[in-house]
Amino acid sequence: MKILVLNCGSSSLKYMIYDWDSRRSLASGVVERVGFSGSFIKHKVPNRETYTLEQECPSHKEAIGLLVQTLTDDDTGVISSLSEIGACGHRVVHGGEKFARSVKITPDVVATFRELADLAPLHNPPNILGIEAAMDYLPEIPHVAVMDTSFHQTMPPASYIYATPYKWYEDYKVRRYGFHGTSHLYVSKRAAVMLGKKPQEVNLVTCHIGNGVSFTAIKNGESYDHSMGLTPLEGLVMGTRSGDIDPAIVGYIADKEGLTAQQVVNMLNKKSGVLGISGKYVDRRDIHKAMDEGDERAWLAFNIECHRAKKYLGAYTAVLGHTDAVVFTAGVGERGWEMREEMCKDMEELGITIDVKLNRKAVSRNHEFTISASDSPVKVFVIPTDEELVFVEDVVGILEGTYGTADFRYSFENPDYVNELREEAYKRELGEQG
Amino acid sequence: MKILVLNCGSSSLKYMIYDWDSRRSLASGVVERVGFSGSFIKHKVPNRETYTLEQECPSHKEAIGLLVQTLTDDDTGVISSLSEIGACGHRVVHGGEKFARSVKITPDVVATFRELADLAPLHNPPNILGIEAAMDYLPEIPHVAVMDTSFHQTMPPASYIYATPYKWYEDYKVRRYGFHGTSHLYVSKRAAVMLGKKPQEVNLVTCHIGNGVSFTAIKNGESYDHSMGLTPLEGLVMGTRSGDIDPAIVGYIADKEGLTAQQVVNMLNKKSGVLGISGKYVDRRDIHKAMDEGDERAWLAFNIECHRAKKYLGAYTAVLGHTDAVVFTAGVGERGWEMREEMCKDMEELGITIDVKLNRKAVSRNHEFTISASDSPVKVFVIPTDEELVFVEDVVGILEGTYGTADFRYSFENPDYVNELREEAYKRELGEQG
Repeated sequence: MKILVLNCGSSSLKYMIYDWDSRRSLASGVVERVGFSGSFIKHKVPNRETYTLEQECPSHKEAIGLLVQTLTDDDTGVISSLSEIGACGHRVVHGGEKFARSVKITPDVVATFRELADLAPLHNPPNILGIEAAMDYLPEIPHVAVMDTSFHQTMPPASYIYATPYKWYEDYKVRRYGFHGTSHLYVSKRAAVMLGKKPQEVNLVTCHIGNGVSFTAIKNGESYDHSMGLTPLEGLVMGTRSGDIDPAIVGYIADKEGLTAQQVVNMLNKKSGVLGISGKYVDRRDIHKAMDEGDERAWLAFNIECHRAKKYLGAYTAVLGHTDAVVFTAGVGERGWEMREEMCKDMEELGITIDVKLNRKAVSRNHEFTISASDSPVKVFVIPTDEELVFVEDVVGILEGTYGTADFRYSFENPDYVNELREEAYKRELGEQG
Repeated sequence: MKILVLNCGSSSLKYMIYDWDSRRSLASGVVERVGFSGSFIKHKVPNRETYTLEQECPSHKEAIGLLVQTLTDDDTGVISSLSEIGACGHRVVHGGEKFARSVKITPDVVATFRELADLAPLHNPPNILGIEAAMDYLPEIPHVAVMDTSFHQTMPPASYIYATPYKWYEDYKVRRYGFHGTSHLYVSKRAAVMLGKKPQEVNLVTCHIGNGVSFTAIKNGESYDHSMGLTPLEGLVMGTRSGDIDPAIVGYIADKEGLTAQQVVNMLNKKSGVLGISGKYVDRRDIHKAMDEGDERAWLAFNIECHRAKKYLGAYTAVLGHTDAVVFTAGVGERGWEMREEMCKDMEELGITIDVKLNRKAVSRNHEFTISASDSPVKVFVIPTDEELVFVEDVVGILEGTYGTADFRYSFENPDYVNELREEAYKRELGEQG
């Protein structure tokens, strides 16, 4: 059986098609500029050159059309007809309090996502458009929704209730939800394997550091506290998001600049973070290049990002009481040795010591690394995330009726689990380095 | 020489008159309901009954008049004429980036406080009214401003710059300032004495927990990071303030309730915190009473407050690298053993262990306590704060020309320092307990 996984943003459609029988990804890619002129697909198949085709996609409907055409085309395709696809998984950012796990999509489920659109106005509406377009093309197969928020529904009220008027929670559902759930789930299960323990036996701080950044305190294998909140704006410094600020700044800037509260929040989402501080750069690789050239604001961005990350690491270590491991994942978490080194510096009194040499060698997105010193009470791991695999296995589990039962296990919870494509890529990387 | 210390709020005027020669407070009190009908003075003199007088005070000018009359009256007074007052110290909440220490008030200084009124619209305007009214009554003597923010001007940019557009800092001075500076200064110097070290040798987390709540990470005796920000709204859960939230909540609630950003911020300042969660209570003693009666929302307020406080404690322990002591101060910090116990529970891996019995006995505002277990690597102290004494000694230091020099020492930095009035009160408390 083949499973299609879709992740629809406001102007993009990311996809992956996975062959469950051979446990291999057949192809992945993205349709960009959906709704704008100049839309195109970028399609990757292992051991083939990346294929790009420009074709106008005024909506997600045409984007799915372009994807279907590319997947089944004689030259670019990986399947002979759509009938090979047995199920489709959809990433949905905000599941509110309704969904503590992935679900088969019914009209009621879509209606709930619509109700939640207020909470995630940038994310849920395109997610819904993608679901509807895919259901038009693939009406016969089951569609499954995998929410960013579900993994965090285990948080206790002390973590998720804000110290705001309680009516805001009752009337408007104002609370901490948490995001990046599939990534935190994946790396927490892998960390348990690396610790030689059951998932429910481990306390972790999982640090997802990409363009978006979120940390989770994981207690007994479950999300216990998390840095993102009602929306993905809260918490750490991100590529373009401010993370935590004095909320009074929203009112102060609204007055100074003659903006509405939402317009200020929009600037906090899109013009802040590393971009806001540096004035120029979102990508942390550009930040490091500018730091090498003596750019003071780039240094400032890096220092602020590390200082704030260190505070969350300490905060979560405190609420966990005992921490087995700290886990780094996502683009910067997997390759940004500089940030990991700075974050973990002088943390011996919290039980965290990294091996500087091991840390500097851990710069691949295709291999798992232990970077703590051998005598560090808290282990430190670098684990490439694999959200798509969680999507796929949730879909399969729902189809097979095992998902949500006590028997359900992800393949990657198995001590022998290896992602072969990645390990092959890692060997090539090592070969290239000589 | 006698020194008058004033702290003017929007509708109140707190005061203390101190005799520098005998190192004793002669009287203290408050004029309440300034600007409203039913204003009154509440005047306390050691070993006398508290004196109360109703007298209309339409502005701070009349409030100072009432104070002067009370201080010099044959029955209620403690001085025979105003000429005994040698100097006056004024608490000013926001000193912006201009003042890293207390200053003699000149027209230029007042003009600067006016410029900063935008940053502290609730606080600086009444502070300025108080300065002007006091200068009218006492035109011949020096007036000194002591800012809540000055102590925190040692913070590094990684602590004080937000990840917002850098222009907001350049154009509108958006940055972390920090507050409660005189309190954090006082208890940090006392903690150094209790540790038997010089102030510049100690790393501390100082926890000021009253109606307002702020924590400071103190590195080598100086403020290194702090929980309050541009305004006192940021950080921990407070009596009526939310502390940290997802800033997107401001935009979300503005839309839902049809409010401006500033109106939402006003609710975050006045209708949130412990009051917002519990729906009823601001005073933590009321919270504990309600908890005893099984009030679930009171329990929730307590749990959230402790959980969030624990996170700050961990965060600051992390950025300090090494922590000598945790210090609790202000109303709840000094008497709220329940919160201290909960905050310090399961913190052994961060080096913090309290002695539960010692902690439960430390409920006086008149005595300093060590509540850590004897084998705790990090000491834990309860230290009653004394902001007024800092005001007084800053004033004297400025008059004598020693303030701001390398030779300047506060009296309470002396290992032999004892606040006799407090120790007498503490002995009475112990006597009353039997």
